[in-house]
Parts: sequence; C-alpha cells; structure tokens
Amino acid sequence: MLKNDLLLRVLNGRETERPPVWMMRQAGRYLPEYMKLRAKYDFFTRVQTPELACEITMQPVDQIGVDAAIIFSDILVIPQAMGMEVLMEEGKGPLLTHTIHTLKDIDALNIEGVEDRLSYVMKAIALTKKELNDSVPLIGFAGAPWTLLCYMVEGKGSKSFDKARQFCITQPGMAHALLQKITDITIPYLRAQIRAGADLVQVFDSWSGLLAPADFETFAQPYLLQILRALQQYAPVILFPKGSWYALPELSRSGVSAIGLDWCIDPGTARQMTENRVVLQGNFDPVKLLLPIPQIKTAVKEMIDAFGPHQYIANLGHGILPNVPVDHARAFVESVKEYSLVKS
Amino acid sequence: MLKNDLLLRVLNGRETERPPVWMMRQAGRYLPEYMKLRAKYDFFTRVQTPELACEITMQPVDQIGVDAAIIFSDILVIPQAMGMEVLMEEGKGPLLTHTIHTLKDIDALNIEGVEDRLSYVMKAIALTKKELNDSVPLIGFAGAPWTLLCYMVEGKGSKSFDKARQFCITQPGMAHALLQKITDITIPYLRAQIRAGADLVQVFDSWSGLLAPADFETFAQPYLLQILRALQQYAPVILFPKGSWYALPELSRSGVSAIGLDWCIDPGTARQMTENRVVLQGNFDPVKLLLPIPQIKTAVKEMIDAFGPHQYIANLGHGILPNVPVDHARAFVESVKEYSLVKS
Repeated sequence: MLKNDLLLRVLNGRETERPPVWMMRQAGRYLPEYMKLRAKYDFFTRVQTPELACEITMQPVDQIGVDAAIIFSDILVIPQAMGMEVLMEEGKGPLLTHTIHTLKDIDALNIEGVEDRLSYVMKAIALTKKELNDSVPLIGFAGAPWTLLCYMVEGKGSKSFDKARQFCITQPGMAHALLQKITDITIPYLRAQIRAGADLVQVFDSWSGLLAPADFETFAQPYLLQILRALQQYAPVILFPKGSWYALPELSRSGVSAIGLDWCIDPGTARQMTENRVVLQGNFDPVKLLLPIPQIKTAVKEMIDAFGPHQYIANLGHGILPNVPVDHARAFVESVKEYSLVKS
Repeated sequence: MLKNDLLLRVLNGRETERPPVWMMRQAGRYLPEYMKLRAKYDFFTRVQTPELACEITMQPVDQIGVDAAIIFSDILVIPQAMGMEVLMEEGKGPLLTHTIHTLKDIDALNIEGVEDRLSYVMKAIALTKKELNDSVPLIGFAGAPWTLLCYMVEGKGSKSFDKARQFCITQPGMAHALLQKITDITIPYLRAQIRAGADLVQVFDSWSGLLAPADFETFAQPYLLQILRALQQYAPVILFPKGSWYALPELSRSGVSAIGLDWCIDPGTARQMTENRVVLQGNFDPVKLLLPIPQIKTAVKEMIDAFGPHQYIANLGHGILPNVPVDHARAFVESVKEYSLVKS
C-alpha cells in the first residue's frame, strides 16, 4: 500500500482531499543535483545505468515533494531498441543517423524481445520502486507511435515535421506499417514497465498537434487507443496528445484514465469539450514558473479553480524549463498541496 | 478596375462565382525562376531591390495563375527599420544580433519615418501594381506585434519561443511597451503600403498559437485589433493568428475582413466557432501538395465543400514547401478555379 496514493485514487475515479501534483521533466536540468550527474555521465549513460536513472528519478521526490515519481528515461529508447542509432548531443536534441524511407527500412526494424533489450529500464523501475519505499506512485512512459515516427522519419527535432507528415500523407500504407510496428513494440514495453513496478503509464504524443484533425484520427488516435486497450487492464493510462485539442471529445469517451493538456487551451474549454467525463492533467505554462513566488501561488490557485479540484491532476503544460529556480518548482507543488477543498 | 477582383469582392462580403485562391509563400523556393534569382542575389538584396521584389512577386501570377499577388518581402523589415540588425543565412532562418532585454533597448527603437526607411517596399509595391496592369489585386503584409516581439526578444526561430513568452509573462509592462511600439510603426507602414498600391493587407501572427488563450487576449489580440481598427477604413484586412483556434469566436466579431486558418483545425469546426459571420481563408496542409495531382484535386474539392464556397478564400494552412513540384502548385490553383458553384 502506498503512503501517498492520491494520484492513483484520482485515476481510479475517486474524489480526493486535494489534487495530486507532479511535473513533466521534473527530474531534469533545473536541479543542481541533476546537473552534477550530467557533468559526469553522458545522456544515454544516465538513461541506461539503472542506479543513475533511479537516483535522478528520486531527486524531485526528495527535493520538490511531488506526489509521483516518473522514471528517468527517453522516448527514443524504442527506436534504439528497434535497431536505429540515436545520438544525443547535450543541449542540441537527438539525431537519428539513418532515417526511415522504404518498406525495407521498416522490415529491418526489430520488435522482438523488447523486455530484454530495454532491460535497463525495467531494472531502473524495480530499483526506484524499492527506493521509493511505497511513498508515492511511480510513472512509466513511452512515446506515442506518431511522435516516434516523427523522429524516425525526420531524424531530428523540427518545428513542423514536414517530412514526417509528408511520409504519412503520401505513403499511408507504409506509414501504417511503421505505426503498427511501433505500437507492437510499445505495448509489451509498457507492460514490462508495469510488471517491473510502474503504477501507471503515460504515453507522450508530443507532436500530435501538428496533424490536421482528420490525420490525427488516421495516424495518431488508432494507435493511442490500441495501446490504451492493451494496457488499461493492468494499470491506469494517461494519454498526452499535445496540441490536439480537437480530439478531446472523442478521447474523453475512450475510457482513458486521464488526458494531459498543454497550456494552449483554457481549462474551462477543456472541461466543456470533455463534458466532465474524464480526469484532466495539466496545464500550467512552464514559463509561469519564472514569475515571483506569490504570483505562482495565485496562478496555481486560479488554475485549480478553473479545472475544478476533482478529476484533476495538477501539472505543467509541457516540461519544466532548465532556468526555473528550484524554490519556484517547490512553490508550484506547495501551492497545490495548500489548496484545501474547503475553500472551493 | 481590376480584371479579376474575386478576392476583393469576397472580402467586401459579396458572393462570387467561385472562391478566390492564392498561396502563402507563393513567390518562393519551389519556383525555378525564383531559385535563379536566389543564386544571384542574397535575401535582403532581393527584398530591398524593388525591381527584384517586383519580378519575384509576379512569378506565381504568371506561372501558377493565382487570383492575387502578395508583395515579396519579410516580416523582419520592421525590426530592421527600428534599428535592429537582422542576418539571414539561406536555409537557416533569421538571426537578430542584439535582442531586447531592457526598457533602454525598447527606448532605443526608432519608429519614426517608416515610410522613408522602408521606401523600397513601397517602391516595389508601386512597381508591381504597374506590372500587374490591373490583372489581380496586390496584397501587402506585416508581422503581428507578438510575432515580431518573438524574434526581437529570442533573436532567432524557436519551437516554443520560451524566452519571448517569459519576457511577456514576467515583465508585462515592458512587453506592452514593446508591443505598442511595434504597433505604432506597423500601422503607418501598412498605411503606406496601401497608399503605394496594396489593395488589401494581411497581418501574420505566425506564433500566436504558442500563447495560452488568456495570454493571447493580453499580448496579441489588442494589438491585432488596433491595427485592424486603424486600417480597415482604407483597405480590407486579413488577420492570420496561426494556431489560435480559441480566438476565433471573438475575432469573428471584430469586423475583420477575413481570418486565416492553419491546417490543424477542421473547416466545419472553424465555421461553427465563427458562426458564419466572417470570411475564412485556408487551410490546405502544405504537405498535401506532394500528393499525386488527382488526389490534390479531390482534397481541394473536399476542402471547399467543407468550408462552403462563399465567405471563403482558398489557400494553404501555412507557406508552400520548397519541394513542391510547380505543376502540383498549379493543380491546387486550378482545382479551385474548376470548382463550379453549380455543383455545390
């Protein structure tokens, strides 16, 4: 039994004494302790060494007081496990040295034995679970098929992933073959994370907002829903289709445990579009953590008031920025903890 | 009197025999004739030499058959006119060597005599107007204050313009001073474009979709509306707040001549949000121009059907991509021209 099971209770549809709170990228560059490890070990060493991944995952639990830990890892471990080379230059973003162009490229991708090939993730989860000592839940995660396709086709970050959209729109058969293959490795990967100790999982569709609504329905949603259907019997699933506001009505009817929101949608609008039938997570603009602390506190209170305190997980609308002072991150978390339902 | 005044008639609220069509960045890198000039003259030489700007502006009118010309220029001529250095490395995007940090930086920006300092734009417009010989209307344009602030504060392109958002949110007084100053130079600049011969103007708010709805209302919308109010008595104004779907209901009540849409909103949703009270422009996903021509034709017909043929300007949802074959661009335009209202 977890000492703090707020997040799980909300995901299971129960009312809680206050909303749970965690932050995307909470284990990251704004923490001096993280920067010390970053100076000593390169990115994939940190990701692939269970002791380091565990230590990094624990940092915000100990120092910021979040209501959940999220395993330190990267969405691109899946393309790696499929046989693609991923280079990560600090501060520059990822580079995939060979991108996907043909059916032969797709056929060459290996989706067998993910549990073995990404065993370091499962080890990190098991280690962290032990380290957490039942204090707060542990979140596992993966990138959504469309977002992974973006990197696998484009080879690097992009403002609009034109090549990836072009690939899907002009070669839909090939795109679906790739998306299905990513889905088919992601499901056992997340299942293994749950078996290793993840109490819930989040699927990051970071670039879904670049798709036209009809293309989201074709190239993103079916694969998100396959993952959801396969996993929801084992653990709660949070979907974060960043920017895809138009999909909220449909996704809210999917039986998903929660939907993550970026900051570019008003909480009231999101509640209206989902007709209060689903837990929502988000959506503080990460730059607002650079406001003076009293203003952060006011803004957090306004956000919770706007979402309503139930069926709600407080979070940022995107990852925390590296230049956020630690005490500001802590103020964000504390503001949620101070929110008493008596007030509301 | 223009021989083809379809666009102006639609902007003036009249029903037309078919929707007018033009393409954002229609004078650009997909055209071999443009590439020849690009090989000979650097970016700002092309922008600042009226004969070259005119020649480039005319290319898609002659070769693609669009219903309007849009003057070849750049939104960053305004920061340049204000005294900022803007470097443009081909294929790399803009770089502003000194960015805005303090009130002193803002005070140093010069907003006087824009008509003189950007006289090359007005000369290019006058020359093009003559060259067009009343065939189709000529569109003038400027960047919106928020989007220009993005570049002036961040110094270069960015996926999320965190520094610019941080500047606005943590120093709103300074941000409003800067936004007002940009507005105060943009109004006489667009007025001068109209006097020089522009038949209508479009304001590009390329990064407004990065703002939370409340921040759009604070930092983008008031300045867009100031520009609209100041100019609508002289010529039709199209606002293109890219990605700010949430602002559609409010903007549709502003008296704007038309609102531009990116491809990430369904035409039916946009019509619903604007309750048929405004002309809409857009929103073909630019990558769809890479489909085979018969599929382009089908997709264009579906798009017009979805928007409805009246109160509608056919366009892309963003600039045309450099790798689009010329005959595909032409097929897009021809598909709109073939759309007969008898069918609808």
